[in-house]
Amino acid sequence: MKGKLYAIGTGPGAPDLLTVRASRLLNTMDVVIAPASKTGRDSLALSIVREFLGENTEVRERNFPMMGSLAEKEAVWQSVADECAELVKAGKTVAFISLGDVMLYSTWVTIMERLPSGIPTEIVPGITSFAFISARIQQPLVMETGSLAIIPCTTSKEDIAAALTQHSSLVLMKAGVRFPELREQIKAHGLLPHAVLVSDATLETERVCRNLMDIKDDEKLSYFSTILINKEWTSS
Amino acid sequence: MKGKLYAIGTGPGAPDLLTVRASRLLNTMDVVIAPASKTGRDSLALSIVREFLGENTEVRERNFPMMGSLAEKEAVWQSVADECAELVKAGKTVAFISLGDVMLYSTWVTIMERLPSGIPTEIVPGITSFAFISARIQQPLVMETGSLAIIPCTTSKEDIAAALTQHSSLVLMKAGVRFPELREQIKAHGLLPHAVLVSDATLETERVCRNLMDIKDDEKLSYFSTILINKEWTSS
Repeated sequence: MKGKLYAIGTGPGAPDLLTVRASRLLNTMDVVIAPASKTGRDSLALSIVREFLGENTEVRERNFPMMGSLAEKEAVWQSVADECAELVKAGKTVAFISLGDVMLYSTWVTIMERLPSGIPTEIVPGITSFAFISARIQQPLVMETGSLAIIPCTTSKEDIAAALTQHSSLVLMKAGVRFPELREQIKAHGLLPHAVLVSDATLETERVCRNLMDIKDDEKLSYFSTILINKEWTSS
Repeated sequence: MKGKLYAIGTGPGAPDLLTVRASRLLNTMDVVIAPASKTGRDSLALSIVREFLGENTEVRERNFPMMGSLAEKEAVWQSVADECAELVKAGKTVAFISLGDVMLYSTWVTIMERLPSGIPTEIVPGITSFAFISARIQQPLVMETGSLAIIPCTTSKEDIAAALTQHSSLVLMKAGVRFPELREQIKAHGLLPHAVLVSDATLETERVCRNLMDIKDDEKLSYFSTILINKEWTSS
């Protein structure tokens, strides 16, 4: 049986930030399953990998609802897991693709935990958004004896405060949510000189802001806004 | 002037886990600077990229002492930064290569901060060791609303305890240092079922241990041992 399921991280957005392994595997796949775009255009993950797909690779886009009840979401996850399993049992090679790295805040994990046992699976890591952002703005993530916390800003104010105190470096994801409050915390910790905000990295709407005070309180920030903080590095 | 300096993360060990961008760039470089191996064999970073080098690429290995005084280390960092700058000024394309990602616990940062201003520099991110390990053992790094702390185990016992309490996921690097004490902490936090230790990932001596109690107190663990903990995932 040659059937096998691959989970492939596409990296942050540029096709050439795929790994060599991912690019070679994609070329040989029978089926690629991609998260669908709501607008009907290529999903971002699919647009990243398209140039590497084989001539006979079948592309299937599947819609993962962001809204809706947990039961609805779980039904979709189960249905995609079942679809992957059926394809593999029929001898097909299948790649599930997802932005960034598939083991870090990724839909892939919800599929993986619903697979029946005995489905041969291989996971191909991808470049994370924060590694890309750090490279783009040339501010190191973390050095030597420091520690790095990666935190979605949907977490509590207290947890963010604890992390700002505890760690030498932080990646604050989804920083568009309650930005003014977040900036207030960063300021209160004396960390403004060490913080950079990046929105929509790799997209046309990309924005890099090295002085968080330049952002107006009522400004609408992209959902994909990330703040990097490195206490041992001064942003300039 | 075509001279430019590239910092390229080679990823964790397998050549095909380089990014497509890194593999293409390496093929066009005039000079590649690699951390030297002490044993006289290919450095690990160099062995990863060798198949991608151009026919006319000159390889220069430079020795970064792990021991010795800070002044000695700083002299080496400055000398390599000067060497990179001189080559770029002479119109050469130069790649400094380093394991994993160059912005995360990497020698590259010590070079970058010593470069004179005006040296055109581009940083190419790499797959981190922990993304690779997570993929290899098929345990997710972090999910949904969770937070992830990346901590070198050279840090204080109190800081490790705080992180074990605070975060849903942890990557404990250099876990070979004081392993018995570390395991005691993980056990006291009730996290043994969620912890996996991986040593020497990608090397011939690779070891995966899903039950930390299987390791003897007096066992000598590799320096490159990492423990992944995910409270929302049970290792099996």
